[in-house]
Amino acid sequence: ILLALLLLTLGFSRGLQPGPRDDYEESAETERVFAASKYGSLWPLPQKVKISDVSFKLTGVTFRITDAKGSSSGASCSLLQNAYRRYYEYIFGGSRVQHGAEGRRAGPSVLTELQVLIVSADSECERFPAVTSDESYELTVDQPYAVLKAPKVWGALRGLETFSQLVYEDEYGAKSINSTTISDFPRFAHRGILLDTSRHFLPIKVILANLEAMAMNKFNVFHWHIVDDQSFPYMSRTFPHISQQGAYHPYTHVYTPADVKMVIEFGRLRGIRVVPEFDTPGHTQSWGKGQKDLLTPCYSGDKPSGSFGPVNPILNTTYDFMSKFFKEISGVFPDAYVHLGGDEVDFNCWKSNPDIQKFMEQQGFGQDFSKLESFYIQKLLDIVATTQKGYMIWQEVFDNGVKLKADMIIHVWKGNQEQYQSEMANVTSSGFQTLLSTPWYLNRISYGQDWQGHYKADPQDFKGTEAQKKLVIGGEACLWGEYVDATNLTPRLWPRASAVGERLWSAVDVTDINDAFSRLSVHRCRMVERGIPAEPLFSSYCPREYKGI
Amino acid sequence: ILLALLLLTLGFSRGLQPGPRDDYEESAETERVFAASKYGSLWPLPQKVKISDVSFKLTGVTFRITDAKGSSSGASCSLLQNAYRRYYEYIFGGSRVQHGAEGRRAGPSVLTELQVLIVSADSECERFPAVTSDESYELTVDQPYAVLKAPKVWGALRGLETFSQLVYEDEYGAKSINSTTISDFPRFAHRGILLDTSRHFLPIKVILANLEAMAMNKFNVFHWHIVDDQSFPYMSRTFPHISQQGAYHPYTHVYTPADVKMVIEFGRLRGIRVVPEFDTPGHTQSWGKGQKDLLTPCYSGDKPSGSFGPVNPILNTTYDFMSKFFKEISGVFPDAYVHLGGDEVDFNCWKSNPDIQKFMEQQGFGQDFSKLESFYIQKLLDIVATTQKGYMIWQEVFDNGVKLKADMIIHVWKGNQEQYQSEMANVTSSGFQTLLSTPWYLNRISYGQDWQGHYKADPQDFKGTEAQKKLVIGGEACLWGEYVDATNLTPRLWPRASAVGERLWSAVDVTDINDAFSRLSVHRCRMVERGIPAEPLFSSYCPREYKGI
Repeated sequence: ILLALLLLTLGFSRGLQPGPRDDYEESAETERVFAASKYGSLWPLPQKVKISDVSFKLTGVTFRITDAKGSSSGASCSLLQNAYRRYYEYIFGGSRVQHGAEGRRAGPSVLTELQVLIVSADSECERFPAVTSDESYELTVDQPYAVLKAPKVWGALRGLETFSQLVYEDEYGAKSINSTTISDFPRFAHRGILLDTSRHFLPIKVILANLEAMAMNKFNVFHWHIVDDQSFPYMSRTFPHISQQGAYHPYTHVYTPADVKMVIEFGRLRGIRVVPEFDTPGHTQSWGKGQKDLLTPCYSGDKPSGSFGPVNPILNTTYDFMSKFFKEISGVFPDAYVHLGGDEVDFNCWKSNPDIQKFMEQQGFGQDFSKLESFYIQKLLDIVATTQKGYMIWQEVFDNGVKLKADMIIHVWKGNQEQYQSEMANVTSSGFQTLLSTPWYLNRISYGQDWQGHYKADPQDFKGTEAQKKLVIGGEACLWGEYVDATNLTPRLWPRASAVGERLWSAVDVTDINDAFSRLSVHRCRMVERGIPAEPLFSSYCPREYKGI
Repeated sequence: ILLALLLLTLGFSRGLQPGPRDDYEESAETERVFAASKYGSLWPLPQKVKISDVSFKLTGVTFRITDAKGSSSGASCSLLQNAYRRYYEYIFGGSRVQHGAEGRRAGPSVLTELQVLIVSADSECERFPAVTSDESYELTVDQPYAVLKAPKVWGALRGLETFSQLVYEDEYGAKSINSTTISDFPRFAHRGILLDTSRHFLPIKVILANLEAMAMNKFNVFHWHIVDDQSFPYMSRTFPHISQQGAYHPYTHVYTPADVKMVIEFGRLRGIRVVPEFDTPGHTQSWGKGQKDLLTPCYSGDKPSGSFGPVNPILNTTYDFMSKFFKEISGVFPDAYVHLGGDEVDFNCWKSNPDIQKFMEQQGFGQDFSKLESFYIQKLLDIVATTQKGYMIWQEVFDNGVKLKADMIIHVWKGNQEQYQSEMANVTSSGFQTLLSTPWYLNRISYGQDWQGHYKADPQDFKGTEAQKKLVIGGEACLWGEYVDATNLTPRLWPRASAVGERLWSAVDVTDINDAFSRLSVHRCRMVERGIPAEPLFSSYCPREYKGI
């Protein structure tokens, strides 16, 4: 009956010619026909799900989310109390007008309570989420009440999202939920979204909305590519002149310390880590506008050309700067990791500079500028190590043979499928932990249902031992900022990133793309109802369309 | 100095490596570097422009748009009065707080008035725009006041948009305009945008916002592909059961007569025609849900399969229905044209049906089902002719050899460049008027600056005589609805459609793509300021970013 109701609610039941109206060849991905999933609209699919035909009603008047007796986390845990309110809103928000007298009859088929039980002595309510955080939970929906059991608050957050996804509207618009048992945990510990606030500035409102959407898809890492060549919107307390000179605008296009704090706390309340990236020595043009002598002066013949290259690796002042800068960063961002970039270092400017040439000679680097890069990176890693942070770097640092610390996480982003699979094999056979992003560059758009390609990629699909596979800690969907800003970022990211979300959370054998299409179609309408302008997968409609333009 | 100020306002002045962060091959279109245009942010570029260095200030307190003495259109013309208010808002809306005492000093360098002079005896204020409407205007910005002279209100509307585009902010945020002379008229009479409200329902709010954006880009035809296979949101007074059964939802996903009227009037006030498309005999699945016997029953062997094909062309009831239906349409939509579709008719169902086979035999059509299609179309054209409407049809009707009336407009949408150019040549050598859409299927998205490809296409670029070229009345940018709804339609359409807007308005030799990039970058920020979430062309920022998500 659940399935029939979903059909009623969504109206995909028409048998239609799916062909778009044109004679270009059809997109490589075949079109899908909606047929309700036996898993309803759960997204990402939990590890173990059992949904029965017995259904209960919920009403906004009687239903409550409460701390269970014996829970290690109670009314003083504002993270949970905030989450209760948020999910109550999600469940009943759209239909509050309907709650009247009819809500008062709490008969045998009415579910009135979801009890949340944190079983571990330390609920971690006041902590920040980490790569080691336990996000597992168990959910039982039954009479007289539903129970959500989790070792830590992080699992409770994931379970609340799952609970809200089990609620649907029956043919009279009444909120309903079926008797259900779920046992769930993520397949990968690191499930990230990269947003780029340098190519275009993203207003805080946009960042927060996307953190909301991440929580709806059980993502747990916001990789904040906060600065790059184009602009430096991070307002540094130690070096305020960098954003004053290097941001698109020193007042309207910067993130103040208060803004950054708000993003981090907003994320924490949703079990989302904020990992900032300060990419060096390349991708630093905007740094140089306010920080004298930081970048390498490029030469044209025997004279400075007036343009600048990567960070200047031969000056002591560079390392003094980096020490102070990363000391500030380590205090501002509580996460145990910082992303240090290290990609796409262009050697041409270094090559042109006579001081750099002399230094290369002194050091015995010959003409191998990757040795100079290594020299820089090694010193940078030593600096960052003193801040007690772990670090992630883009794959080039590994590829170029920089001597790396064992606790480094290598972020794979280059090449075609064959190339990234071989890279994953190489990185893990060298004993490093790794993250995959190559197949998930969501800035690359194409016509049709490209989410299907994102859905099929698997970060453990490469030749390697079990031990190697275990070094894969997850992946990230990246939305680089050249072509997105507040006007189009959110619909371009969702629900395309949702495909990555399921890949990184659900079991390895969750690969039925027809079932995924059905669940994701309903899930995207749910995001729309919650105020996220997630774009459509294909011809269809949502009962409540997006209210903006 | 204007150029320097534009740079100040927009901040594209950074010399940046444009490469997106990945190793995919670069998009075929090269990236552009912003350098202020001597034409400021005018879009589309007027036919003749002369901008001097002399600048005046405008303040919201003193500036007025007024009817010139001797104008044939005065205070009673609500179309103009509405436009004055709208453009006053556009010019001063973002900065109203700044108007204080400083606005009161109306010195010699202050422009206080734009006088609008309609010179033709009939201003056409109360009329609907038409393909024959005169949209020309002349604009002089000088002391003591600016003058906008136009034969009809339609030219005044275009000139008001141009005037508003001449206003910029100086380094103190004061609104400024340079002494300017412009003489302008469109290259093509038909400059359209097709939106599809069948694959996804578009809330009225979204349609109106896009009509606003169309006016900002001097488009003058909204081609409303209102119904199709997927849904029938048009609420017919004569046949209300069709939308009751064929819309996605009979209340929330329909356009009532009042809605349709509002769209038409909103368009009229902006000089935009609303041309509805009711596509038959194919693309009609949704019609059949509420209208018994309208569609052809398909057969599987000697039994009806339960599915239906195109409109049934062999029943008298079909033509009775069409007569009544198009009589209603001709009353509801005031435009002189209706688009009758006629594309992609699938013959398989007709072939399977024994009654159709018998009819084919009786008529002596043999196995040539395009003759049956012609039979249907000819009867339909006769029906529509009685409503005094002209019609447009998709190119297949011409390709299939249907005998056509001379006043028909053939809409070209198929093939690659070579194919559509040869089609344009064929259509015009047969003496028919034509519209081009093939290169402007904006639903087909790709990574990078694809607007450049749209910009380069030219509807008169085919082998033909001058007489043939004159039969090209314009073109339309099409945004088919499979993958767009309220969540993503507007940023996907703008500013990509703007490229088409300039191609159809400006002179044939306006092809400098670097200049276009510079003007369009500023124009898109202006659209954003006016509340249209037009997406970015490339890394950059707008002084006032979009306020939504």
